[in-house]
Amino acid sequence: MTESKDTMSKIRAPELQTTGWLNTTETITLTSLRGKVVLLHAFQMLCPGCVQQGIPQTQKIFNEFDPDRVAVIGLHTVFEHHAVMTREALEVFAYEYRLRFPIGIDKPNEQMAIPHTMMAYQMQGTPTTILIDKTGHLRLHQFGHVSDFLLGVSIGTLLAETDEEQATTISSILSPDATETPLADACDTEGCHS
Amino acid sequence: MTESKDTMSKIRAPELQTTGWLNTTETITLTSLRGKVVLLHAFQMLCPGCVQQGIPQTQKIFNEFDPDRVAVIGLHTVFEHHAVMTREALEVFAYEYRLRFPIGIDKPNEQMAIPHTMMAYQMQGTPTTILIDKTGHLRLHQFGHVSDFLLGVSIGTLLAETDEEQATTISSILSPDATETPLADACDTEGCHS
Amino acid sequence: MTESKDTMSKIRAPELQTTGWLNTTETITLTSLRGKVVLLHAFQMLCPGCVQQGIPQTQKIFNEFDPDRVAVIGLHTVFEHHAVMTREALEVFAYEYRLRFPIGIDKPNEQMAIPHTMMAYQMQGTPTTILIDKTGHLRLHQFGHVSDFLLGVSIGTLLAETDEEQATTISSILSPDATETPLADACDTEGCHS
Amino acid sequence: MTESKDTMSKIRAPELQTTGWLNTTETITLTSLRGKVVLLHAFQMLCPGCVQQGIPQTQKIFNEFDPDRVAVIGLHTVFEHHAVMTREALEVFAYEYRLRFPIGIDKPNEQMAIPHTMMAYQMQGTPTTILIDKTGHLRLHQFGHVSDFLLGVSIGTLLAETDEEQATTISSILSPDATETPLADACDTEGCHS
Repeated sequence: MTESKDTMSKIRAPELQTTGWLNTTETITLTSLRGKVVLLHAFQMLCPGCVQQGIPQTQKIFNEFDPDRVAVIGLHTVFEHHAVMTREALEVFAYEYRLRFPIGIDKPNEQMAIPHTMMAYQMQGTPTTILIDKTGHLRLHQFGHVSDFLLGVSIGTLLAETDEEQATTISSILSPDATETPLADACDTEGCHS
Repeated sequence: MTESKDTMSKIRAPELQTTGWLNTTETITLTSLRGKVVLLHAFQMLCPGCVQQGIPQTQKIFNEFDPDRVAVIGLHTVFEHHAVMTREALEVFAYEYRLRFPIGIDKPNEQMAIPHTMMAYQMQGTPTTILIDKTGHLRLHQFGHVSDFLLGVSIGTLLAETDEEQATTISSILSPDATETPLADACDTEGCHS
Repeated sequence: MTESKDTMSKIRAPELQTTGWLNTTETITLTSLRGKVVLLHAFQMLCPGCVQQGIPQTQKIFNEFDPDRVAVIGLHTVFEHHAVMTREALEVFAYEYRLRFPIGIDKPNEQMAIPHTMMAYQMQGTPTTILIDKTGHLRLHQFGHVSDFLLGVSIGTLLAETDEEQATTISSILSPDATETPLADACDTEGCHS
Repeated sequence: MTESKDTMSKIRAPELQTTGWLNTTETITLTSLRGKVVLLHAFQMLCPGCVQQGIPQTQKIFNEFDPDRVAVIGLHTVFEHHAVMTREALEVFAYEYRLRFPIGIDKPNEQMAIPHTMMAYQMQGTPTTILIDKTGHLRLHQFGHVSDFLLGVSIGTLLAETDEEQATTISSILSPDATETPLADACDTEGCHS
């Protein structure tokens, strides 16, 4: 597991490929967010684990952090039931759940069910929580539930980094006995596999 | 508030004054923990806010972190009902609640109800959550409930620090609108004022 | 309030008006359920209070009771955003949330947003929880959240009734100080007013 | 299981044997409560399952019901660590947790650790939840956690009974698949076996 983390810490986060945005007038790119820690929350509006845990957690983080230091972004990665999870439906969902963070719509793929950004990140399903550091590298990539505590530790660690140093991988801080491993590919019972 | 934080970031954490320990064979001093981030959780065994929130949170952090990086310590700061919150009662409590982290017994003060360490830290009551950085300085001091998320951010920030730099205060990361302010002296409804 | 309850205990529950059903091959009518206690849960698939509280509670009750004694029925009462809360979307929702209880689709009204059954019951919004006794009379009609405890007491009371006696209104059992009044028209913060 | 329930429905609840009471000026006997449904909550002040679940649930029921219809009583059944779970400690506990319902102290047994009432009811440990009907018969006897919903159903059922009829056992209402069986002797992970 240590190896995969070390490798991950050198992977540049693929750019977002979107066909539209909610809660922002501009198209957001990862490049434009360089210098900030980025929380990317990939979800589907009809995924129970997203609605009950991932999205409320994302909204809370959006409320609590200085947007100049932590950029919080939702990504609607529809990989099933495309006919009913439309942009129009997503807008109603975002309105009813009072979501305020920017939400990108992952670009559909003509050839297959999984959209482009989801494919580029090799996400297993929804919800998926991703952290990108100030230099644009992937640092956390987890399918399913991430605890508030571990997400806090991870964001705190990335915030404290200067551009030069990235020696510390997040998980090296945690006990080997920790039941939740933020960098691992674990599957939550609430999560939707793709 | 920024001022008080800046001041706080320069305060050296007072040494613990204890009359005994549970879950460890040795007396623990802050001096011996230099180089680690220290979470100090001050509680009373019959304080509802401690039992329902602070102590489970402390146990969880103890389980999840590498003890060589984060030292988790409980402190039984009895300032009321001394006759029933004895060492013997505390031992039963720690046994029944399956607490594993070291717990110091704050040294009683002959002259007054509040014990010595609690007085030195000017704690308002229990639970009180304290974070001490690798150089032995006080960095978070909060009476009442601290959310998992904010405690995680705070620990992550302190872990990422090298000895030379302490420029970033934890709260400077957070939005001014954040409802919970980890460095402020806020009072939780569950907390016991001294 | 006592008066309104006495009145309510004599109101015959209006018959359901539906255009289709999920999780059952037959159209369900209240008439066919005479002799059972009926829990009718009116919801919309994009209503946060329904998704987070009302629907999980309804599913739990469906799992726990003998269906020959307590009939649990959902009713999709779409009164807003009709274009995206279609039957097709509802089917995806029911599938993803693993709902097993029968769900009727309230008959749309050509003249107005509120569908027919919702109008006949004068519901204020969603979620609305309704209990109908063995003789087909309305006994509980509440907009917003109903606690597990009070819903349990209410169902237990109705189950114990024989056909002849209905003297006891559910709320007469509760303390006047009880914060939640199951027969009252109270508005939960999570609820959607129509 | 049906047999044991039928048997149970004919068992007269043993009288309480106590050495003192909190939150009431009088000694309470079951005989004096005839005509009311009685909720008896047996606990120990240092039992985690009691403190975290059973006692808050008992306090809530005490707040919500008309005391002329439902009598809510705590019973401190100390069967371990007698030296620290004294009357004085219990008084501090009840004060700090703001308990308002009457609490009897189970009469210690000179010969063994288990006190007299606990022995008479053959309780397995704490918490134990007991329901006694209007005629003084045992109707529910469960070790460990009881859900709000099932406790509500049970109380509602007993409230609706007249003195003559006791034909319906509580569990006959529930689905055979119900995961929690209120009349069964099940063991909660939080519970303390005696």
